Amino acid sequence: VAATGLDRVTSPLASAEIIAVGSELLGTVRIDTNSLFITGRLAALGIQVKGKAVVGDDRTRLRAFFIAALERSDLVVLTGGLGPTADDVTREVVADALDLALVEDAAITARIEDRFARRGLRMPDVNRRQAMVPAGAVALPNPNGTAPGLLITDEGRGKVVVLLPGPPRELQPMFGLLCDHGVIAQRAGAERLHTVSLFTTQRSESHVEEIAQPLYGPWAEEDPPIETTILASPGQIELHLTLRSRDSAAAQRRLESARTVLANALGDAVFSTDGRPLHRVVADMLRERAMTIAAAESCTGGLLMTRLTDLPGSSAYVAGGVVAYSNVLKTALLGVDARLIDAHGAVSEPVAAAMVDGLRARTSADVNVSITGIAGPAGGTPGKPVGTVVIGALVQGKPLSLRTHLFPGDREMVRFQATQTALDVVRRLLF
Amino acid sequence: VAATGLDRVTSPLASAEIIAVGSELLGTVRIDTNSLFITGRLAALGIQVKGKAVVGDDRTRLRAFFIAALERSDLVVLTGGLGPTADDVTREVVADALDLALVEDAAITARIEDRFARRGLRMPDVNRRQAMVPAGAVALPNPNGTAPGLLITDEGRGKVVVLLPGPPRELQPMFGLLCDHGVIAQRAGAERLHTVSLFTTQRSESHVEEIAQPLYGPWAEEDPPIETTILASPGQIELHLTLRSRDSAAAQRRLESARTVLANALGDAVFSTDGRPLHRVVADMLRERAMTIAAAESCTGGLLMTRLTDLPGSSAYVAGGVVAYSNVLKTALLGVDARLIDAHGAVSEPVAAAMVDGLRARTSADVNVSITGIAGPAGGTPGKPVGTVVIGALVQGKPLSLRTHLFPGDREMVRFQATQTALDVVRRLLF
Repeated sequence: VAATGLDRVTSPLASAEIIAVGSELLGTVRIDTNSLFITGRLAALGIQVKGKAVVGDDRTRLRAFFIAALERSDLVVLTGGLGPTADDVTREVVADALDLALVEDAAITARIEDRFARRGLRMPDVNRRQAMVPAGAVALPNPNGTAPGLLITDEGRGKVVVLLPGPPRELQPMFGLLCDHGVIAQRAGAERLHTVSLFTTQRSESHVEEIAQPLYGPWAEEDPPIETTILASPGQIELHLTLRSRDSAAAQRRLESARTVLANALGDAVFSTDGRPLHRVVADMLRERAMTIAAAESCTGGLLMTRLTDLPGSSAYVAGGVVAYSNVLKTALLGVDARLIDAHGAVSEPVAAAMVDGLRARTSADVNVSITGIAGPAGGTPGKPVGTVVIGALVQGKPLSLRTHLFPGDREMVRFQATQTALDVVRRLLF
Repeated sequence: VAATGLDRVTSPLASAEIIAVGSELLGTVRIDTNSLFITGRLAALGIQVKGKAVVGDDRTRLRAFFIAALERSDLVVLTGGLGPTADDVTREVVADALDLALVEDAAITARIEDRFARRGLRMPDVNRRQAMVPAGAVALPNPNGTAPGLLITDEGRGKVVVLLPGPPRELQPMFGLLCDHGVIAQRAGAERLHTVSLFTTQRSESHVEEIAQPLYGPWAEEDPPIETTILASPGQIELHLTLRSRDSAAAQRRLESARTVLANALGDAVFSTDGRPLHRVVADMLRERAMTIAAAESCTGGLLMTRLTDLPGSSAYVAGGVVAYSNVLKTALLGVDARLIDAHGAVSEPVAAAMVDGLRARTSADVNVSITGIAGPAGGTPGKPVGTVVIGALVQGKPLSLRTHLFPGDREMVRFQATQTALDVVRRLLF
């Protein structure tokens, strides 16, 4: 902690506010997501984000938001508005609000000139604005862009102000350093936020709540309390447990034991206790077993294979498959007998079974999955309403799994739940 | 405009701020998106959102945010914190900040009791909190939940405060009514925001800027000015033109003529002048021509077909296709000669050509597309770095299109750009 220039200040940073600057963030298209990353890094250090705001490139309003945030909170992080043009006002507004002069930092000018020179260009004069820093501010080098970040410590009040460029690939490594070894790490309190999670599928939120609430309810009364949040989305219910404590080892032990209690109660509905999404869990199981997977998709149109191949290295376990969207292709690509489709309809257990059989014959993959259903909004009938999806799964050495599901929601929700359920069927068969 | 109780106030609402209330919106998982909907509705009425904020269930901070917002802006919209429990503080904080007493509205109590009664339940006593409203506030009925919205007009200052429940399916119809016929519609100025857009692909942001800026630059100096925003993402550059005006017909004419000028200058890089995404544009072209499409995907793993089948009614034009992720499946499902793969590598123009040929032979679709590439992060070589993608396209009656691309960015960006480029190749061939 030596040589930080902060020796006089001892109170830890407890509260923070985040201000995203940029008129483009006040429209109907873009949304500030940097604050999620910043919040996560601060939470791990026990620093709570108490408020966040978005302001346009508007000096008066930004000044008002900034002064109010600094009044209320120990740490204020501003993102965006550090570019070279006249509507990039963050540097000037912060300097003015803190009554600091803006001075050119020759080292920053040199770095920016060098960045341009490496591409054989002369630095445009306008970029000199990016080297103007409030007196006493520390420049945070930006390996991925021209705008340096700035760190200002208000020693009298023990407050910290951080200015970061808006692009996530510039902001994230810069803020990460401050939280790993930099001033924010040094000024964080001894209390840390600890967290564990459990992800489940194939159960409703109320069903999970019914089992889990009697268990986690009393933990909220303990000292320090374990707080539990349930996040429900179609096809996935997540339980997040958090605990603030100065004793990391004890906190971790308590959370892990709490997680075990919940995992035992929820049984095999739990697919992940380490934050991995379901397609990643299945991918890891396949990789460990040196097995390959193939899919024959109709209503999901390739979404299952897209999810499985989202992950780097997926060629180790994804063979590929077929999108048999039309009935003609169910026959041409998978050898499904057209008379079977005529007799039972494309969304039926016999057709799903024939799809997965035809797929296995063609791919020789260890795991073969078929999905056929009605994603909507059109195509439903009283007997087979929108949301009806038949899933077949063949895992080497096990009997065929074949089941008809009815998923609620719109087209996107039905398609996602169909892939989620197919993945969960494979997970259970591989277990 | 009679009987609104607003006769004394004549200045139109010009500026707005939005405050989302709820500690769950200050974590790392959930994000406020209600503000995008609210911003869109207000923008259409010429009311500009000048700032937005997220605050936890924290009376002191909410009070500070609210008072500052009301000071600066004509309209303040608060979302969330209207539930029945003790941590739902919005009603109380707003009443207190405006120095209004909270009084029980018997009509609201009756509505909530009725809502419970219809499900055969007695209203829990805690729900009575939801009937406590600041004196003089107008209740906004909520057909989809128990929490009514509240409308408060500060006649002295001509300001309007709206409180809305957080769930989008409750908030949206309630706020929609206010903007269609309610107080916000009545109090909006005669000036409206008009907007048009152009989407392009296969050009860099700087290339689009170079062509477009000399044209739109002078429009910003006209009265009223046309403002142009460029939104760049991998595979898509968007130009958004907006104009504030009291004369809707004239504004629309000016914007449409501006759009035509830009569209002519940018030529066939423009794929959409009506907000449709590229996969929708291609889908509509296929539908109009009664043609079908099939795809043979390797590195994109089904993403192209997933995008095409995202749209309702896609069975009219999507036949399906093959995800030939492994080389074995390129041979087994598409008949690609294994010696061809050995000789040229899976990511090569001869293999892409063989994939699209094999696909056409099996699908009889009118349009056949193949994609083979290296999405990364591993698998690159000096000769074929990560981002190398070969795209083949065969459209009935036209020669084979075959080209090797190099896309920048990470795995997700490479995969998206590959599908975007494949769609654009098809668009140009169908044109």
